[in-house]
Amino acid sequence: MAAGYLAAGKAAEKATFEFTLRRLPANRNFVIMAGLPEAVDYLLNLSFTAEEIEYLRGLDQFRNAPPNFFEYLRTFRFTGDLFSVPEGTPLFAGEPVLTIRGPLIEAQIPETFVLSAITFQTLIATKAARSVHASQGRPVIEFGTRRAHTPQAGVLGARAAYLGGCEGTSNTEAGFRYGIPVMGTAAHSWVMSFASETEAFRQLQRLLGEHTIQLIDTYDTVAGARQAAALGAPLWGLRIDSGDLLSLSREVRAVLDAAGLHDAKIMASGDLDEYKIRDLLRDGAPLDAFGVGTQLATSADAPAMGATYKMVELDLGGIHRFTAKFSDEKTTLPGSKQIFRDKARDVIARSGECGNGEALLRPVILGGCLIEPLPTLEQARCRAAQSLARLPAPLRELEEAEQPWPVIYSRELRTLVEQTRLNLER
Amino acid sequence: MAAGYLAAGKAAEKATFEFTLRRLPANRNFVIMAGLPEAVDYLLNLSFTAEEIEYLRGLDQFRNAPPNFFEYLRTFRFTGDLFSVPEGTPLFAGEPVLTIRGPLIEAQIPETFVLSAITFQTLIATKAARSVHASQGRPVIEFGTRRAHTPQAGVLGARAAYLGGCEGTSNTEAGFRYGIPVMGTAAHSWVMSFASETEAFRQLQRLLGEHTIQLIDTYDTVAGARQAAALGAPLWGLRIDSGDLLSLSREVRAVLDAAGLHDAKIMASGDLDEYKIRDLLRDGAPLDAFGVGTQLATSADAPAMGATYKMVELDLGGIHRFTAKFSDEKTTLPGSKQIFRDKARDVIARSGECGNGEALLRPVILGGCLIEPLPTLEQARCRAAQSLARLPAPLRELEEAEQPWPVIYSRELRTLVEQTRLNLER
Repeated sequence: MAAGYLAAGKAAEKATFEFTLRRLPANRNFVIMAGLPEAVDYLLNLSFTAEEIEYLRGLDQFRNAPPNFFEYLRTFRFTGDLFSVPEGTPLFAGEPVLTIRGPLIEAQIPETFVLSAITFQTLIATKAARSVHASQGRPVIEFGTRRAHTPQAGVLGARAAYLGGCEGTSNTEAGFRYGIPVMGTAAHSWVMSFASETEAFRQLQRLLGEHTIQLIDTYDTVAGARQAAALGAPLWGLRIDSGDLLSLSREVRAVLDAAGLHDAKIMASGDLDEYKIRDLLRDGAPLDAFGVGTQLATSADAPAMGATYKMVELDLGGIHRFTAKFSDEKTTLPGSKQIFRDKARDVIARSGECGNGEALLRPVILGGCLIEPLPTLEQARCRAAQSLARLPAPLRELEEAEQPWPVIYSRELRTLVEQTRLNLER
Repeated sequence: MAAGYLAAGKAAEKATFEFTLRRLPANRNFVIMAGLPEAVDYLLNLSFTAEEIEYLRGLDQFRNAPPNFFEYLRTFRFTGDLFSVPEGTPLFAGEPVLTIRGPLIEAQIPETFVLSAITFQTLIATKAARSVHASQGRPVIEFGTRRAHTPQAGVLGARAAYLGGCEGTSNTEAGFRYGIPVMGTAAHSWVMSFASETEAFRQLQRLLGEHTIQLIDTYDTVAGARQAAALGAPLWGLRIDSGDLLSLSREVRAVLDAAGLHDAKIMASGDLDEYKIRDLLRDGAPLDAFGVGTQLATSADAPAMGATYKMVELDLGGIHRFTAKFSDEKTTLPGSKQIFRDKARDVIARSGECGNGEALLRPVILGGCLIEPLPTLEQARCRAAQSLARLPAPLRELEEAEQPWPVIYSRELRTLVEQTRLNLER
């Protein structure tokens, strides 16, 4: 497409592309925007090496590419603008998430990378927020790197999970890179490497003191609890990773209480998700913390998100065109937009319109330069928590709410949609 | 755990860990092993930078770590052995996938990275093999990077999809890195950037000649087909990306045939997976190629795989212990193993046993060194195709077969399991 735009004399045209949340993933009443730093980093550093250009030159598809295309790539960088909703913002179906504006080719190329970077972290932050809601104030720790779709997804997923409300992660690389609290327990192999379970527990306690969490289900969960309890304090608590978590947690609680270890806590893990956490607590399981792995790291019940990256405006130098796609179910709306959020609803308006409430789409990159440092991860995490607390209670629940958050179009936007449709039909 | 092993005087003990496929993902009769190069690369280059060590030293969990632990990390590298099933091998429930053997700490640390690297690519290669089976010889192109869980997952997913049988990918970075054929079409924005659809089609045809694939659903699919057909050859064909693919493909075929373009092909895309491909072809849709995106890149119906990394042997210098976990549903089997595959079944045996058929677990790294270059991606792809062709036909189908591939344990392995269980109960 880039070579074709150049060949067709369209390199000087300026385009605006919009990343839009077409619909919410199943069961979700919102998503939490996350992943912006990766998109920004990509745009600020986008370029082509000599080896990459030679590779492209050798492809049959580029046989008829204009000769100046490869020279164009050699000095390519992104010189356009990025507007984005801040990380940590809840978003709803049909809303624009970010806008990229610049020379046509520069605004086209980022499509795939940006979609992948943002949709993944947004899915994970959202799943984390749901799990944290289900846990009713008890800490949820992200334990899922081993099931993430590549090790990089493990690191970035840990970041997104923290943004969405998790207390920490077992991914030490994410702790190193982003300052996220790292938490975890020894694995079954720790227990198996010692001659007895008691010896394994004693050695861990010596090392970790009051941070000690004994994993008690290597051989027999309740017997493991007794052995750990017999060692007494110091002890944070015990972790159960398999079996019937409801009945086992009650038995383990009884063992701890009988040993006078009333302050010792119980962490549950083992294929947990927001639904299982909710059910366990509803049934009265005496659990104090949750390690959530597979389901969180892959957003397993909704592993993908319907998002599009479509051209909404094109400036041909003098002639300005609003563009849209009206075919079938994949309709897109023309024109750069803004979201105004007040206490009761969102209004999607044309950019440049005045509106009430908070304007969500803000400039991040202008003329290829970052205009100010992005909010920190802690700030994004706070924004997520505060924004979620302000939503009507049914929207925070795990099931689809009867009343979705109201998202309406401004009169000006509706007029533009109709005009664009008429122009296309002409 | 590493600091604890050192503190407990266990640094010299030699451990064997096994990565085991606990169960097959839903609907799968096999998985295709993929992702080994990433695991190998990790093991060969594993080390800790000064900054990483300082980070760990500052964590509260390491407050009581033995003083020599951080010095140990400074010179840490993997000096052990890796045995693995080759990429492209179909595997079944309960089978060992790879074995890592070395000093306890060195064999423990790779757990999370290796699980994540292998399970992800294995899921994608498997999903690709199923899609390719459903397409009955028609090319399937991997189109899913935008939905992959991070851009890196897009690149590695494209690799795995090719290994599993896809013809190519739209991920150019994967083409550059791995030599995978790159294929794709212009996007809707290409069409939208021109004053008319006809002009957009004409410009693309000028650039791509007989490689031209016109995306015809920007405004109206059948009208788009007429415009593309009116331009005549050269043309590879048309792509439909939305709507009712069965009825639209018939209408579009009729348009092409009426224009005398009998050789022009039709590619379908738009939330396809193996089931939809099968149904479209069963209903007689005149489709010649499939672009599969979201469902493939996220293995959406089975986004995670139950795999474990457990200690199976421990050598304490003189004393040799076989280790296993017998608790509840997450039981593991002790001892290093081998898989012998003949025409009718797999036998899981103890390593060192003799057996009939192909021995699947082979040395890859010995003493920290790669013993020979890994098979190429093309070789792994061939192995996958040939191995699948040899499976009983029902196992290649999309639904769970009544008769799974027989996997049995050798007598020696069964004896070892019983002995280990008795020892633990003593």
